[in-house]
Amino acid sequence: MSAGAGNGAANRRFVLAHRPVGLPQVDDFRLEVTPRPEPGPGQLLVRNRFISVDPGTRGRLGDRETYAQPLALGEVIQAATVGTVEVSNHPRFAVGDWVAAAFGWQDWGLSDGRGVRVIPDNGLPPSTAIGVLGIPGLTAYFGMLEVGAVKAGDQVLVTSAAGAVGSAAGQMAMIEGARVVGVAGGPTKCGWLARELGFADAIDHRQATDMTAAVAAACPNGVDVLFDNVGNAMIDSVLPLMNRGGRIVVCGQMADYNQPQPEAVGLKNTRAFIGQRLTMRGLVAFDYYREYPQAWARMTDWIRQGKLKYREEIIDGFAALPQAFIGLFTGENLGRRVIRPD
Amino acid sequence: MSAGAGNGAANRRFVLAHRPVGLPQVDDFRLEVTPRPEPGPGQLLVRNRFISVDPGTRGRLGDRETYAQPLALGEVIQAATVGTVEVSNHPRFAVGDWVAAAFGWQDWGLSDGRGVRVIPDNGLPPSTAIGVLGIPGLTAYFGMLEVGAVKAGDQVLVTSAAGAVGSAAGQMAMIEGARVVGVAGGPTKCGWLARELGFADAIDHRQATDMTAAVAAACPNGVDVLFDNVGNAMIDSVLPLMNRGGRIVVCGQMADYNQPQPEAVGLKNTRAFIGQRLTMRGLVAFDYYREYPQAWARMTDWIRQGKLKYREEIIDGFAALPQAFIGLFTGENLGRRVIRPD
Repeated sequence: MSAGAGNGAANRRFVLAHRPVGLPQVDDFRLEVTPRPEPGPGQLLVRNRFISVDPGTRGRLGDRETYAQPLALGEVIQAATVGTVEVSNHPRFAVGDWVAAAFGWQDWGLSDGRGVRVIPDNGLPPSTAIGVLGIPGLTAYFGMLEVGAVKAGDQVLVTSAAGAVGSAAGQMAMIEGARVVGVAGGPTKCGWLARELGFADAIDHRQATDMTAAVAAACPNGVDVLFDNVGNAMIDSVLPLMNRGGRIVVCGQMADYNQPQPEAVGLKNTRAFIGQRLTMRGLVAFDYYREYPQAWARMTDWIRQGKLKYREEIIDGFAALPQAFIGLFTGENLGRRVIRPD
Repeated sequence: MSAGAGNGAANRRFVLAHRPVGLPQVDDFRLEVTPRPEPGPGQLLVRNRFISVDPGTRGRLGDRETYAQPLALGEVIQAATVGTVEVSNHPRFAVGDWVAAAFGWQDWGLSDGRGVRVIPDNGLPPSTAIGVLGIPGLTAYFGMLEVGAVKAGDQVLVTSAAGAVGSAAGQMAMIEGARVVGVAGGPTKCGWLARELGFADAIDHRQATDMTAAVAAACPNGVDVLFDNVGNAMIDSVLPLMNRGGRIVVCGQMADYNQPQPEAVGLKNTRAFIGQRLTMRGLVAFDYYREYPQAWARMTDWIRQGKLKYREEIIDGFAALPQAFIGLFTGENLGRRVIRPD
């Protein structure tokens, strides 16, 4: 079945064909074409213009509950979407409205309005509603400011720092007056962090044979906040360098998502927890939904002031979804990756 | 050199002879006899009547900094003490006063008054000043009430629950209205927890071949607060059973103290941190010293009301100190263990 250009009358979608073992493969996802849904009374129909690929989705492809129910085999892959209202039988939505939702990997979204939000006219590209102003940015915001409780003068280390979450988290720490070092893969990403975003230093994990030594060199005054997107091996490398009262924000575990549980690599340098009075805490942005409006307002201001930069990598073509997702785990992406169906 | 009865004119003391490798051995400690110190102007001389042995001391016998500086070879072993003032050239202390201090494993303590506290007349045995009302009780108090933030209805699991810290922590959780299960070694300790202290259940870790299964059976509604004194293997067993928003109080790591760092056993079930929004935090009671007076007042009330029971195991004879300390790691003690020099 072809995933060629959408014809408007049909709905292309990717569903879960097999539960991946290890790194997902393209054929873990099955392309289906179904009729375009018809909105009934009180419903609206949205054409998805941008579809996200997120590392966190990996956790829903297995059969164990993580922070969300696992997807059933045959279900549409869950993802954030930005689209335009094509038909509306709902008083809150007008045809032509740009809306953010979570319709997943498909052309069309049908809704009674719940979980659909009109994107305010903030002068930013609509795709940012699922990027720097979407769950990635909100995760950075609540992770760094609430869980990490970053404050002026803190020494901050952000891993997967060139990603959508990490790059925002690092910049927010700088806005609060912290010194921020990033860990990323390759000279392009590290250069972007250091030269364009103003990170104090960037560690290329592909070059660092001893991560503890590399962090010690880049963070000579230790680490007050570790904002981690990678997983156990990374956290364990940094634990011996944590300062008293340090906070470890467990934001993502990208290196572990493709491993069977329990993780092959454990946290071993745990004596630092008592010695340095460390706090390690896991984070899901959804828990803070009541505070989203304030976060959006502040983040929008920061973007306008040039303090919060973001980078979107827009990939054209619905068929690209599975490979674009898999590439997140091999470090292909720079910044937020979204797919624009053709 | 004999450690027979003190003659009052001499000062017996145990110093660090060798840094232990693994479980400490008796000859890691060297008995010395020195002259009784002479107090100068502004000083007081205290005869130690009760001397503590504490698992946490193990961390100071190695050459790596933990939450306190390592002891130097030849230094007196650090420990909490209760004694009587024998000579006082200090206006705050009178001969005959009972005082709590940290003079270590020796007969006599010399001080300018700093770190020495007159034990108030609270109707309790003076030895409680370094037991249920000393660092063990304070550790339980701040660990359970502040770090653990226990509240009514919580499901609480306490490990090393028959020890000085664990037994107090579990009872404080019950005072707050939580359901408390303990883990301890052997039927005597488990019986004491369940029958005398009112724990909902007690798991004998010597019988439990699968700790996760044993905890799941004893805590059918999961675990909201894990108050752990044992270390990584124990925490890892309980992580899959933690409820959303659960707190892990890293109070002690007794099973790990005698291991080389990093720990042989790592935390692997870490995916629960994000999935269940867990918080894990290390605790040192000293950090809360400004709140000690309030804690003492509340704990004294609880003891008088019969809500906070404690058990002291008093061992006679100065020479018993090293073996009494070593026995903490093999689970010999029931409750707080203190030595009464002869």
